[in-house]
Amino acid sequence: MTEQELLNIAIEEARQGLAEGGVPIGSAIMDAQGNIVGRGHNLIFQTKDPTAHAEMCAARSVGIRNDWKSFTLATTLSPCLMCSGLITFYQIPHIVIGDDTTVPGARNALARHNISYDILNDHTCIDMLQTWIDQNPQKWALIIGHEHPEN
Amino acid sequence: MTEQELLNIAIEEARQGLAEGGVPIGSAIMDAQGNIVGRGHNLIFQTKDPTAHAEMCAARSVGIRNDWKSFTLATTLSPCLMCSGLITFYQIPHIVIGDDTTVPGARNALARHNISYDILNDHTCIDMLQTWIDQNPQKWALIIGHEHPEN
Repeated sequence: MTEQELLNIAIEEARQGLAEGGVPIGSAIMDAQGNIVGRGHNLIFQTKDPTAHAEMCAARSVGIRNDWKSFTLATTLSPCLMCSGLITFYQIPHIVIGDDTTVPGARNALARHNISYDILNDHTCIDMLQTWIDQNPQKWALIIGHEHPEN
Repeated sequence: MTEQELLNIAIEEARQGLAEGGVPIGSAIMDAQGNIVGRGHNLIFQTKDPTAHAEMCAARSVGIRNDWKSFTLATTLSPCLMCSGLITFYQIPHIVIGDDTTVPGARNALARHNISYDILNDHTCIDMLQTWIDQNPQKWALIIGHEHPEN
């Protein structure tokens, strides 16, 4: 499975979130053989869970495993420090990022932990989220936090 | 409510986790008036959720609010980078840490984001977790990850 194909599954998740009335951000995780082992989308508004970022929801669906070091995680939006911390905690070695223009994410944290990443800046990811933000500025402000963006 | 009293609620949560057969790590969150607004314990083994660290579970129970900047979070074990990222994302300004001897946690990340913290090194926190680790070394190895400890 190519990086774009993995990202496309994350985009499917983002579309599902949008259909549920949530923020359109999605994530997907594959193993070394290209099998999808986890997928999920941001559920903050659907479940009132402030930790329910897309990457967290995808990781929850993986369950308890000891082979995280063989995984690749794709996310439609550059991961925040919480999600980057999840990635470093379980040592997922490679990340595919669909959009780092809307927010830059905690790329310095990824780099500090020797996590490699490719930034695709896919127009579907960018346009879907930007359209939602334009339509829901107060909701976006409520969940984005104000963290120092790149650490 | 004093820092020790807030930590004592986190310890109650850790004891509850132990009673459920889980890792005895707990967390509690209070607002500026000293009201408990969130509490939880590590649920990784109970729910097969790799993201269910105590601080994450406590934050989930808070729900969606816009006054995180007035909160104090206590945790029986020094927070990892994922949980420190949660703290910085919602800008919780002050943390009470019950034990930083078992693992040091991502204190550099807290400091980088101007999060203040007090380390109590409470013997109940330390002894309860260390006893569990001694009895469950394989389970501990499965969930602790191998992240660079202080970043």
